[in-house]
Amino acid sequence: MVEDCIFCKMVDGQVPVTKVYEDEIVLAFLDIGPLSDGHTLLLPKEHTEKVDQSSPELLGQVASRLSKVTKAVVQAVEAEGYHVLCNNGRAAGQLVNHLHFHIIPRNSGDTLFPEWPSYKYEEGKADEIAEKIRRNL
Amino acid sequence: MVEDCIFCKMVDGQVPVTKVYEDEIVLAFLDIGPLSDGHTLLLPKEHTEKVDQSSPELLGQVASRLSKVTKAVVQAVEAEGYHVLCNNGRAAGQLVNHLHFHIIPRNSGDTLFPEWPSYKYEEGKADEIAEKIRRNL
Repeated sequence: MVEDCIFCKMVDGQVPVTKVYEDEIVLAFLDIGPLSDGHTLLLPKEHTEKVDQSSPELLGQVASRLSKVTKAVVQAVEAEGYHVLCNNGRAAGQLVNHLHFHIIPRNSGDTLFPEWPSYKYEEGKADEIAEKIRRNL
Repeated sequence: MVEDCIFCKMVDGQVPVTKVYEDEIVLAFLDIGPLSDGHTLLLPKEHTEKVDQSSPELLGQVASRLSKVTKAVVQAVEAEGYHVLCNNGRAAGQLVNHLHFHIIPRNSGDTLFPEWPSYKYEEGKADEIAEKIRRNL
């Protein structure tokens, strides 16, 4: 447990949550600042900060709970779709430095994330970046 | 393999990709319509559509590859942060019906997803929704 981590305190029962699921590995509860009704956070009880700093084993254990929890969330709020989103680092909007997956219900016509501002790589750029990634694997 | 699935065709080698990683379970390649340089897709070779329809085992296997691939992507493009995002259903922006995780590098000051339009539940609403989710688990 990390002393100044609000999610560790929630896991430890020191800070109350609106719990939806718990087992030996994970805790899931409603986000108190939802983007849509039923917006749920799923996180490992063990403190880890970001995906790239987490063990493959822990990530696998957390993700293996996603099918069950997403299904229950979607049924409860009768959503047409949903995001599973993990923000890593302040630049990506991570506000609590304890790994967590947002489950965000969506419906057609809602106004969440209306843009998907994709672009195209210039000639040769994609190969150059892919080569760099492969070298770092 | 699903006949009309572009990602199955990529897994099968019928459609070329800018590959960054492959093993017996997953394939990872650069998104051809990136949101930022290094935007990568990680997907299971086995066809499955959404998280809630996927087996816990498969989700765990795919997610266990996330630490390695996100680390390599972040190092390659020197990003400050990144999203891991899985869109499920058309209402959530899923355009290809084969489960895939977006790895989207972020830097402070970029203009991707500038809004996080959170709100608060009215009194009693969170408990009501959480109870519905728990009943569906």
